[in-house]
Amino acid sequence: MGLSFQVKTIFITLFLFSTSAFAAGDAHADPVAPVLLALIVILAVAKIGGEIFERLGQPAVLGELLGGVVLGNLILLNPAWNFFEPLRAHVMQENWAVVIDSLARVGVIILLFEVGLESTVQGMMKVGASSLLVALLGIVAPFFLGFGVSWFFIKELPAELAAAVPADFSLNYVHMFVGAVLCATSVGITARVFKDLGQLQKPEAQIILGAAVIDDVLGLIILAVISGIIAAASAGQALEVGALLRLIGTAFLFLAGALGLGVWLVPKLMHQLGKLRTGGVMLISALLLAFALSYLANKVGLAAIIGAFAAGLILEEKHFHHFREKLHLEQWLKPLATFFVPIFFVLMGIQVRLETFANLSVLGVAAGLTIAAIIGKQICGLGVLEKGYDRLTVGVGMIPRGEVGLIFAGIGKSLNVINDAMFSAIVIMVIVTTLITPPVLKITLARGNQKHSKSKPGQAGTNRLPRG
Amino acid sequence: MGLSFQVKTIFITLFLFSTSAFAAGDAHADPVAPVLLALIVILAVAKIGGEIFERLGQPAVLGELLGGVVLGNLILLNPAWNFFEPLRAHVMQENWAVVIDSLARVGVIILLFEVGLESTVQGMMKVGASSLLVALLGIVAPFFLGFGVSWFFIKELPAELAAAVPADFSLNYVHMFVGAVLCATSVGITARVFKDLGQLQKPEAQIILGAAVIDDVLGLIILAVISGIIAAASAGQALEVGALLRLIGTAFLFLAGALGLGVWLVPKLMHQLGKLRTGGVMLISALLLAFALSYLANKVGLAAIIGAFAAGLILEEKHFHHFREKLHLEQWLKPLATFFVPIFFVLMGIQVRLETFANLSVLGVAAGLTIAAIIGKQICGLGVLEKGYDRLTVGVGMIPRGEVGLIFAGIGKSLNVINDAMFSAIVIMVIVTTLITPPVLKITLARGNQKHSKSKPGQAGTNRLPRG
Repeated sequence: MGLSFQVKTIFITLFLFSTSAFAAGDAHADPVAPVLLALIVILAVAKIGGEIFERLGQPAVLGELLGGVVLGNLILLNPAWNFFEPLRAHVMQENWAVVIDSLARVGVIILLFEVGLESTVQGMMKVGASSLLVALLGIVAPFFLGFGVSWFFIKELPAELAAAVPADFSLNYVHMFVGAVLCATSVGITARVFKDLGQLQKPEAQIILGAAVIDDVLGLIILAVISGIIAAASAGQALEVGALLRLIGTAFLFLAGALGLGVWLVPKLMHQLGKLRTGGVMLISALLLAFALSYLANKVGLAAIIGAFAAGLILEEKHFHHFREKLHLEQWLKPLATFFVPIFFVLMGIQVRLETFANLSVLGVAAGLTIAAIIGKQICGLGVLEKGYDRLTVGVGMIPRGEVGLIFAGIGKSLNVINDAMFSAIVIMVIVTTLITPPVLKITLARGNQKHSKSKPGQAGTNRLPRG
Repeated sequence: MGLSFQVKTIFITLFLFSTSAFAAGDAHADPVAPVLLALIVILAVAKIGGEIFERLGQPAVLGELLGGVVLGNLILLNPAWNFFEPLRAHVMQENWAVVIDSLARVGVIILLFEVGLESTVQGMMKVGASSLLVALLGIVAPFFLGFGVSWFFIKELPAELAAAVPADFSLNYVHMFVGAVLCATSVGITARVFKDLGQLQKPEAQIILGAAVIDDVLGLIILAVISGIIAAASAGQALEVGALLRLIGTAFLFLAGALGLGVWLVPKLMHQLGKLRTGGVMLISALLLAFALSYLANKVGLAAIIGAFAAGLILEEKHFHHFREKLHLEQWLKPLATFFVPIFFVLMGIQVRLETFANLSVLGVAAGLTIAAIIGKQICGLGVLEKGYDRLTVGVGMIPRGEVGLIFAGIGKSLNVINDAMFSAIVIMVIVTTLITPPVLKITLARGNQKHSKSKPGQAGTNRLPRG
């Protein structure tokens, strides 16, 4: 190869870069070019951030989020570094930003679909009394603590919301929304942390995973109900109980209907689709179900991700046993998730405005929320009915809020219930709850394992393997 | 399960659909909803079309294309069925159309990246004299035949082009572009057809695949040169040879530089990236290289897909041997291609305006182009230097124009060199050349195998397995 070849290559490389100003007119000015550039930066930052945080023993998602925070806030270092401002608009204006925003939204749909795939409808039904009780305690306690923190710090409506709603719009709706944000448990992060620690088969892990799934569904319903209440109140129909009941009914009926479809129609449909000869039928069938339920959920007034999650619950690996393809659905989905999901987390980071952190009261709210989020989930431990299990580990394992908290906060932002300052406080809460979980969990697990090995040697839980 | 459960499920399903009008305000009106709906329709039509045409023994890509033609032209049946009109605009206006258009463009980048991955730089260098000669004949003959057909049928500049260029703009540029469109050989379709027929290991298949790869590169350079000439002429600098040479130089230097990077830098880079711990590094590294070279190609005035193809040529499976992931890069890319690539072909179909077919002269041009396309590639057979191989099979195997012809036509449309009528004629040519290849190839292969089994039994070619 030799030096002269290397010198030649460097020369050619430099020449190529120097000719980038040349460009033969706008003949080939492909509208996808700025999208590609944004994807290159976002995906590279996601991987660099993920790598750094994995090496620090933290979940990769945290690195993606913080990488996004750095990208979005470069403008604070130099006003000319405003490349990502189009991605921070309330409604995207530039075409490439519209595309990236949509890719991020498809990303979170694919993520919730994957999370849903971890469980089955039957598995949900069989979930132990402990999981249910842990989930309920893990929703009730953080909701009221979050409400209390919001009541303590927020004394007036966010400006944009106040301009849009009737004068009698109650501040309690804002407190309820903040409470709802604290209810979320991130099953993705929880499972990922347990997997990273090699502790997925512990009974405590199984209880947490079951509870996290129930939490997800209940949390999404709470979100739908509260969003519906706020939307109704904004339109000046605040206390119309009929609309509220219809909304709750719609949420339950959508899930019940989707799950009913799952038990009855999907196996038949998949049996027919399995006869197709063309390639990639398994992936496209699964995506079409996820997209269709996401679209339908959105149409009935729920968040699109509820539909994606329901689609994941419905679909089971056994529906695909007779398909010609040898790969499992999980293996088909993983590359799509690897591409799409980090776009969502980096974009969430980009949309964090660090200048709001300069406000001391934001840090106060963030501290209050974080304490409420942690204490609220510690009460979960009381829901463990079996003896000999480590209640502290269950409480700690329920702490991470992750993507679900961010999604709730994002919806709150789009409803104007959450202003920039509260959004920043919630992001700090998400970052802190996600950051403290792995080290604390290591400690409680080590402690619990010592106790465990004395009392119940060889106990190993089930073989269900959640997504990594 | 019983009848009552089924009745209940139907009731719930109907209720869910009936409540879609309810939707709690615009609280959750997610901007991704129309994108999801478009994706559902496009992916479903792609799979239905692909399935029908595979069952007819035709390549799936043809079904995707024709499925798109049906979707886009529903408006001819009922003016109210205009859902897809936003996707037929010259420049996309609606946000969901912008997103679908970008997904299609990412799709064709992923496709050309995959095609490039089929070969290596070393493999390109070692490609036999036959492949090179077949490729050259397969470019020169169709170019002049295509030029001739265009010269015979086209007597004036397309209206939109005439309005934009100086009065002395030569009609010959249009003829050259049509000639360039006919040069393309679709390596994807060719390999796919041979694979479907189980004949990938025949020496004729190897010659065709090698020639198709060379054709791709030369065709893309020809496209770049002609596009550059037209762009220069449009700006009134028609015969500036310096700019032309710079353009050719840029095209060659970009490829030489990219390939130089490939031999020198990429193995070192991949060696470093292989040490990373975070998930999906292999896929994201490959995509970043593909996106970066696509972006760079676009920046130096070439089509983005040239960069994607070069990235595919550079990357080799052996660069990833030390990565932690067990799956091959091909297996990582396949799900992404399964999702993205059909969007491109369906969109190309949607953009075909059937009303232009009502023009008898379009059908005349289409017939002329199709004959030129078929005869032009039959001359390829003369390039086979070895004795005993079936020259007719080589000629027939080179016929399909597929995605590359469509891409060329699409660029011609964006340059206004190709008007709607010529675009429709080219699409007919692509459809016909793609459609006739499998049945004719079956016949010539059966005939060739009989001759072959008499003269050279057991000859089995190499073990290189092109993409399916």
